[in-house]
Amino acid sequence: MKQYDVIILGGGPSGIITGVTGIKQNPGKSFLMLKEESKGLVPCGIPYIFGVLGDVSKNIMGPKPFIDAGGEVLVDPATKVDVKNKVVTTLSGATYGFDKLVFATGSIPAIPTFLPGYDLDGVEYIKKSYTAIDKLKAKTDAAKSVVVIGGGFIGVEVAEQLAANDSKDVSLIEMEKYCLYRAFSEDLAARADSQIRKTKVKLFTNTRVAEIVGEAGHVTGVKLADGRTLPADIVISAIGYKPNTKLAADAGLRINENGAIAIDRYLRTKTPDVFAVGDCSSTEGFITGDSDNIMLASTATAEARILGYNLFSIRLLRDFAGTLSVFSTEVHNHVFASAGAIEQAASAANIEFLVGKFEDVDRHPGTLPGTSSLLVKLIVSPKNGAVIGGEICGGKSAGELINVIALAIQKNVTVYELVCFQVGTHPLLTSAPTKYVLIKAAENAIAQI
Amino acid sequence: MKQYDVIILGGGPSGIITGVTGIKQNPGKSFLMLKEESKGLVPCGIPYIFGVLGDVSKNIMGPKPFIDAGGEVLVDPATKVDVKNKVVTTLSGATYGFDKLVFATGSIPAIPTFLPGYDLDGVEYIKKSYTAIDKLKAKTDAAKSVVVIGGGFIGVEVAEQLAANDSKDVSLIEMEKYCLYRAFSEDLAARADSQIRKTKVKLFTNTRVAEIVGEAGHVTGVKLADGRTLPADIVISAIGYKPNTKLAADAGLRINENGAIAIDRYLRTKTPDVFAVGDCSSTEGFITGDSDNIMLASTATAEARILGYNLFSIRLLRDFAGTLSVFSTEVHNHVFASAGAIEQAASAANIEFLVGKFEDVDRHPGTLPGTSSLLVKLIVSPKNGAVIGGEICGGKSAGELINVIALAIQKNVTVYELVCFQVGTHPLLTSAPTKYVLIKAAENAIAQI
Repeated sequence: MKQYDVIILGGGPSGIITGVTGIKQNPGKSFLMLKEESKGLVPCGIPYIFGVLGDVSKNIMGPKPFIDAGGEVLVDPATKVDVKNKVVTTLSGATYGFDKLVFATGSIPAIPTFLPGYDLDGVEYIKKSYTAIDKLKAKTDAAKSVVVIGGGFIGVEVAEQLAANDSKDVSLIEMEKYCLYRAFSEDLAARADSQIRKTKVKLFTNTRVAEIVGEAGHVTGVKLADGRTLPADIVISAIGYKPNTKLAADAGLRINENGAIAIDRYLRTKTPDVFAVGDCSSTEGFITGDSDNIMLASTATAEARILGYNLFSIRLLRDFAGTLSVFSTEVHNHVFASAGAIEQAASAANIEFLVGKFEDVDRHPGTLPGTSSLLVKLIVSPKNGAVIGGEICGGKSAGELINVIALAIQKNVTVYELVCFQVGTHPLLTSAPTKYVLIKAAENAIAQI
Repeated sequence: MKQYDVIILGGGPSGIITGVTGIKQNPGKSFLMLKEESKGLVPCGIPYIFGVLGDVSKNIMGPKPFIDAGGEVLVDPATKVDVKNKVVTTLSGATYGFDKLVFATGSIPAIPTFLPGYDLDGVEYIKKSYTAIDKLKAKTDAAKSVVVIGGGFIGVEVAEQLAANDSKDVSLIEMEKYCLYRAFSEDLAARADSQIRKTKVKLFTNTRVAEIVGEAGHVTGVKLADGRTLPADIVISAIGYKPNTKLAADAGLRINENGAIAIDRYLRTKTPDVFAVGDCSSTEGFITGDSDNIMLASTATAEARILGYNLFSIRLLRDFAGTLSVFSTEVHNHVFASAGAIEQAASAANIEFLVGKFEDVDRHPGTLPGTSSLLVKLIVSPKNGAVIGGEICGGKSAGELINVIALAIQKNVTVYELVCFQVGTHPLLTSAPTKYVLIKAAENAIAQI
């Protein structure tokens, strides 16, 4: 039986980055990655395969950096893990011994078993799999009517991309008052919805699905709770993902109340030498420390870097407790981004906060071509003025501006410090120095303290 | 004689922001602003008047926010200041008494008196004045050949904008090895030069001007040190700016060795109740504390906010010592940005440093339309890993990404912390989470420590 210092189960972003970082930080150690498919996808790029990218082959992400660094990759997924004897068995029946084992098994689509008709042919999912998405792309190409269930990021992005095809009829159903309502406060979520409504997507918010209907075992439509039926050649269920933990559970690892592999701050399970990272593992909210379920490649890779350093001993201290969710997307040419606490989440957790807010243009003067409006909201702890969250709606620059806010949250920056923050501005690139929107939002927060 | 609590001399960004912040933070106090012209300009937008904006009227910035807040504005500049009796005399002969006085008199173009012919008719300057730029725009419209002397930000931006006009012949002369060499290290400055060379601008680097030549008192060309002569209908001298301090010097305020009004960290001169802010005032480098001469609207407005809070007493502590220069510009659709220490400046100041560097694409996958390359360099103190500077070359997102680095510098963030930094990423907006360029540059720095 071949023996490795480290075996990584899974070839997504967290597996790759754990491997690359781990090899660089632990020279001389042997690394094996076991994965399901030879080709991998950029996970967050998947929705764009259905539109602007046009083909699954345009969205490839493979383990090449890991191989280049000296790692070994086998397309032969693990089917059994014996943590006591430190042996992994694969689909082909091979066995490999390990010193350290990393679960990076990712997440799988949640199945709406509560919906009659969920098991009809033509009910599809956005799986993080090259072959699955390749097939689904062909099916959506052939479909005239598509109904997407679930207005989270994936649902919204997939619906908009599909609707860019003139001949396709696309509906999007969200049971909450707004789409993207887990990531944005009411006013930004409302703006995102109004952007969606400017596309060809037919948006149904505040709407429940009663049943997925079909004929001869194949989907023909979606029946809403109000009795209407939307015709559908295919239905894409995008109601969320759940941690892929069957292998870990079978191995006896502790699965927490959210269905994720329980880990500590250094990605360690309670089983010695066994780690879990990325979507399959537990996260804790950065303010309350309560268990939550953040599944983001950006977060996963941050954790994977920490794990890569610390596989054999803790040598890189983690300076920021908890997991910060930083979201961004683009809806009909408007960027929506958020970081950390949002209003409804802060209220639910009984966190006192106030909201600093400012809106202006993202160029100066605003007469320049390409100018967009830019809104920044800061969620601020009133006692010391610390920034605990932020939201942005604007042009493309919002994609990196949210990371200024993300860093501010992670470094406990207060609105008083932001008022003195020395920024770079340029007419073609940012809002004006006199009205730099982030700083004005901080001023607005101070005015309320 | 009318009496004011605060008189502000100058209506540029620092004057306006001192006024707006001062009024909001000191309710009940009376504020007067004395300025030279009724209309003001967005200073950093001036180069774009000569191209994409097309007219000076598209680049207006006035004191409206100050007036809206309750400030009084007079177009009647101060001609004399009596700091002992606390009286300002204006051009019209009026006198006003003050409790607090703020010099926000800005900067004026340096005149190349060392160059024969500098005083010919047709030798022009980029003055921060509505009427002056309005006139200059008309002159450049009429000119067929324009020579710009000085490849700093203003020279480069003005030359590129002028050259966008097909019928115009534009030359740019820089005596250093590269343009923008005060703001960027050699490799980035070289890239900027190669971008300039892709435009119609004829770029002469490593080139000295011997003389500005003319006939009948009007400029006809620029003679280079190597003997060549470039024909010119007008010459734009963009060799820099100097603090506008005559009024302050006449009033007996201390002018420092760089020609700026000497101030402390709270913008106070040594004369009680007299302050100076923005381009006319002294700055100190954030690492060495040595006197330098940063003139940036972004820096000026940060200082102006601090001053607005602290006019009557120090109530908002300044948490970041020194002035951080954060530059950005766009050269032929490539953004160049820097913050803090750059290599040649760090070497000159005998600061030990290493450079972490990474380059990739600014979208993911890189097959998406609109993808640019993105290079990040971090200047890092080797002992503790603190980030003391950074440079970026990339697409438009670099304009806000440089502010992530600027905040990192101001909060003493180390490369070890950046490796654990939780960022937001999105296919259409940023580099991939697995290769977020800023984090990879931090990793590259750590590999050298």
